[in-house]
Order: sequence, then C-alpha cells, then structure tokens
Amino acid sequence: MPELRRDPIIGRWVIVSSERGKKPSDYGKEPEEEIGRVCPFCKGNEHLTPSGILAYREPGTMKNKPGWWVRVVPNKFPALGIEGGIERIGEGMYDKMNGFGAHEVIIETPNHDLEINQLPDNRIEDVLWVYRDRMLDLKRDNRFEYVLIFKNHGAAAGASLSHPHSQIIALPMVPIRVKQEIQGAKMYFDYKERCVFCDIIKQEMNDGERIVSENDNFIAICPFASRFPFEIWILPKVHDSCYEDSQKHEVSSLANIMKTVLNKLNLALDNPPYNFLIHTSPIKESISSNYHWHIELMPKLSKIAGFEWGTGFYINPTPPEQAAKYLREIG
Amino acid sequence: MPELRRDPIIGRWVIVSSERGKKPSDYGKEPEEEIGRVCPFCKGNEHLTPSGILAYREPGTMKNKPGWWVRVVPNKFPALGIEGGIERIGEGMYDKMNGFGAHEVIIETPNHDLEINQLPDNRIEDVLWVYRDRMLDLKRDNRFEYVLIFKNHGAAAGASLSHPHSQIIALPMVPIRVKQEIQGAKMYFDYKERCVFCDIIKQEMNDGERIVSENDNFIAICPFASRFPFEIWILPKVHDSCYEDSQKHEVSSLANIMKTVLNKLNLALDNPPYNFLIHTSPIKESISSNYHWHIELMPKLSKIAGFEWGTGFYINPTPPEQAAKYLREIG
Repeated sequence: MPELRRDPIIGRWVIVSSERGKKPSDYGKEPEEEIGRVCPFCKGNEHLTPSGILAYREPGTMKNKPGWWVRVVPNKFPALGIEGGIERIGEGMYDKMNGFGAHEVIIETPNHDLEINQLPDNRIEDVLWVYRDRMLDLKRDNRFEYVLIFKNHGAAAGASLSHPHSQIIALPMVPIRVKQEIQGAKMYFDYKERCVFCDIIKQEMNDGERIVSENDNFIAICPFASRFPFEIWILPKVHDSCYEDSQKHEVSSLANIMKTVLNKLNLALDNPPYNFLIHTSPIKESISSNYHWHIELMPKLSKIAGFEWGTGFYINPTPPEQAAKYLREIG
Repeated sequence: MPELRRDPIIGRWVIVSSERGKKPSDYGKEPEEEIGRVCPFCKGNEHLTPSGILAYREPGTMKNKPGWWVRVVPNKFPALGIEGGIERIGEGMYDKMNGFGAHEVIIETPNHDLEINQLPDNRIEDVLWVYRDRMLDLKRDNRFEYVLIFKNHGAAAGASLSHPHSQIIALPMVPIRVKQEIQGAKMYFDYKERCVFCDIIKQEMNDGERIVSENDNFIAICPFASRFPFEIWILPKVHDSCYEDSQKHEVSSLANIMKTVLNKLNLALDNPPYNFLIHTSPIKESISSNYHWHIELMPKLSKIAGFEWGTGFYINPTPPEQAAKYLREIG
C-alpha cells in the first residue's frame, strides 16, 4: 500500500509508493519501446485494463467490450489505493496516512492515433462531460477533499502510454498548490471585493496583447507572469468556481477553444509534449465568490533546475506577449 | 533588460528575459555539441569569460590569467542585470520591476574533467569558502534581499556547460519557496518553541534509517517526505540560520560530507544529473532561532508532470528509507 507523508516544514504531502519500490538500477533506463506492444487502451483490448468505471458507448454494446468512444478505467498502477481508512498517524514529529485516494484513466478515444484536438467537436465535448461525470461521482465519497483532472501528453511530459488519455486523482486533502491559489485569491478579494481571476480577464480583454484565442464563453491567454514559454490559461469569462457546474453551452464552447488552442500550439511548436490540468474549487468549499476555475496548459520546453527548485521562481525566455502574438496569428 | 513580473494570485515572481526572446523555432533543438568547442571555463581561456570577480590563485599570478584554482565571473548570459533601480511598477492590476539582480558563475576547478567530488578535500573547502565570500560581498548591497547558491550538474539537470561550476543569483526579494519554509518553521517554533530542523535532526539520529552519512558537524538524510527518489538534505547538527556564519572546522566538515555523499550518489546511480542548492536565511533577517540553513540535493531521475504541477505534491517511487539504506551501504 502506498503511503502519504507530510513534509513537516512546508506542509506538502508526498505519495511514497513503497510497492513500486524502484531500485537504483531501475532509473536511467529508457522506457521499453511501445512499438509492437499491444496497447491496452485500444478498441478490442478492453480486457487488458481493469474493469471499466464509465463509458459513453453505442446502445446495445456491452461493458468492457468495443462500442465505446470515451472510457474510464481504474489506473492499473495507481499512485493511491481506494482501500483503507484516512486516519492521520504520527511518527514522532512526522505525519503520515494510508495512501488513500482514487486514480483513474480517461481513454479519450478508441483510436490510438487521434489526439484529443483531432477528434470531432462533439467527441471532445464528451471527454469534457466525462471529466464532469467523474468529478460529481467522486465528490459523493466524503473522504475526498479534492479531485484533480490532468493530462500528460508525450513521454517528456510524463506520459507512459501514447494512446490519448487523461487522468483523475481524488485526494483526501486539498493540494498545497490549490491552497496557495485560494489564499492568494482570498487576500485579493478581501482587499478589492472582486475576484482576482475576473479582474485578470477584464484587463486581458482590454490589453489584448496576451490573448491567444477567445469565444463567447472562454478566453485563452498567456498569463502576465507565465512560468514557462507558451504557457496558456483558459478561463470561463463568467465567474464560476467549479468546473462541474459549467452550463451545457459552456462545455461546447470549452471544447471549441481547447481544440483551437491545442491546434495552434501543435502548429507553433511542432507537436510539443505538454501537460494540462483543471484547477477547480475543493469539494467542501464548492461555491466561492473569490475562486474561479481554469485550465493551465504548459508545453514542456524548458528544464526545471537549481534556481527554480531553490526559489520557486521561474526564468521564462519567451515573453508571454510574444508567445500570444505568435499563437494568435498562426493557423 | 529582463523584467521581473509577479503572479497576482500566488505572489510568485518570474524572470521574463525579453532579450533572449526565444522564438518557437528555438525550442526542441538539441543544444550544440560541446565537443570540439573551446571551453570558456578552462585554464588559459580566461579571456572568454567576462572579467573575474574573485579568484583563489597562486601568489604572483595575474587577474584573468591562469594560476587560479577557483574563479568567480559574471554570467555571460545573465538571467538578471546589475543595472537600474528596484522600483516596483504597476501595470493595471499587475506588478513588475526592472530585472535587477546579480548572476555569477563559480568555476570550481580549472580542470574540465574533475567533478567537485573528485577534487582534493582542501579544494572542495575552497569552493565552499568562495560561496561564503560571494554571499558576504553581495549582502553589502542593500538592494538585495536574498542570495541563492546552486549547482546544475548534467544537461538533464539544466547545465549548459559541462565544466564543473556552480551559480549565484542575488535577488531583490525573498523567493517564495524560502518564504514558505520560513513561515512553516516559524509556525512550528511558535507552537513548540523549538527549531523544526533541529527536531528533524534529533529524530533522524534516533531513528537512523534515513541517514545517508554523518560526521561531527553534519548529517545527510533522505528526508521523511522526500519529493524525489534519492533526494538528500545535508544539515549542520548545531543550529545555525546562516550558511555564511559557518565556523572554519564546519566548512572542512561540510566539504568532507559533500564529497562522501556525491561519491555515494554517483556510485549508486551511475553518475546521475543532479541539482543542489543552499537554503540560508534572507539577508535582512540573518540570525533566527527558527530557521536552519541546509543543502538540498536532488538527482534528476523522475519527471514533473500534470499531477505535480496541479497539486504541488509529488509521487516518489523509492521510499527514503530504501534510498538511504542503499546509499549508506555503498562505497
């Protein structure tokens, strides 16, 4: 069973997966070539994954059989396990707990070679609806405090399988990164009585120079203090703290802007590896006037080194205004 | 001139280096092969670096000429520049300032092929003395708030030149990462009236299972909540908030444990790329009963992906107890 351990200084939790127990000799090896191996996410190989949790499929087709177009399965090598309690235990001055959590995989398409942005609009929408369905379902388990949806695309961005997929991890605590955002947003709200994200959107729409794309309901920008070259945030224009409360027309609008933005990124940077993640409100403080859900999308172009680890600051060699201009004009 | 920009939500500063202005086509290219290129850090090539700031050298030898065994020069491609003021400027709701700061390179040896841990003990000590000399000198400029010393070793860990070197960046603000450590340590101190780092050292000496190495003055451990496989912290056993206040016998003891630890790491992981950094007190709050300077050393073995970016948490596949046992027993 994995273990969750808390850093006694910073309060950051770390998942220590003692079962995977990688030995020194396991590092530095290149991952095995995928070519020639059977992909467990492809149509017809449903038996190679744990039994499905949810699928959008043709009427009359059977569970764990072809006929689906989006499919959610438990991660075969989960970072956290769904068994056991959530008591926190002291070990001298240290704190730990059973590695409790959910870790699921969203297979975005049965087709190995179709990236999410190459899917038809209604299929992208369905991936977004599946994100929502799983969030709502996981929220029912009151041992969870947070549900994170993220995607690693490309080996350099941490993907271990190339078949298009995203991941969900549900956690028994609010992640430190989200806590910091909430605290920052709250501090701004306490002073201004306005949502900091709403103010960002207003200023960006005014300035225009950091806009990558926009439609009726969403705006995609390279943020003013971008950590990474070509970092992009996608935000709903109307204040909303929870992804899962999006209206139907908003989901369709989000699918549209995600497709546009990913297409632009792929054109500009020749199909770069990337990560994206959805930051939404913690489960137990869902509706908030100072938090504003959003997507952070980061192509993997630069290295994190001693300066970044030591400071928490970043060095970005491409000003967001230049990145946004380039992305705005391409495609 | 680079620009420092502040994230309006988190308060994290980012260095945007508009001059380097990397275009999309500049990413994804492998760095040029070093082989056959003249190394600016080697003996005899002193004219290829900006004029030296400090050198430990044979008596009678001349500045910017051979005869030195440690040499400090301004970074030829600095992330921050030493010119200009430190006024913070508003841009609507955003905050920025001139990219003011110092960025220096410590060339650890004139010999291209000798890693820091392969140097004789007294030469490693001299690198540590140079760290201290530069810290003390930079502290005199009261526009600075923090001096960070760090090392990137190996291309995968962000080193752009293979000749052994470390770097110094002096900043006009306290980095967010250090602020978080100080806040956490203070919260612990307010409750316990003891230094959290001193308590960690006591518990680790008691438990023993996470110790990598120790001598009279220092202990090297794999921390309880290690973010990364084989992460190592080196801490002075006697409470001290400032690296630069180390006693002479401590500097010699630190050189000794660094050599041991790096040798072990190289044996265990076949000369991995790594980063290390020194966390010491901010300049203007030097002496503190709740902060405790230390070194964080992280071999680059795993990838940071969507989960880590979204949560600030980490997944560590090698429990620190296993890593420490392996390192303790090797070499």
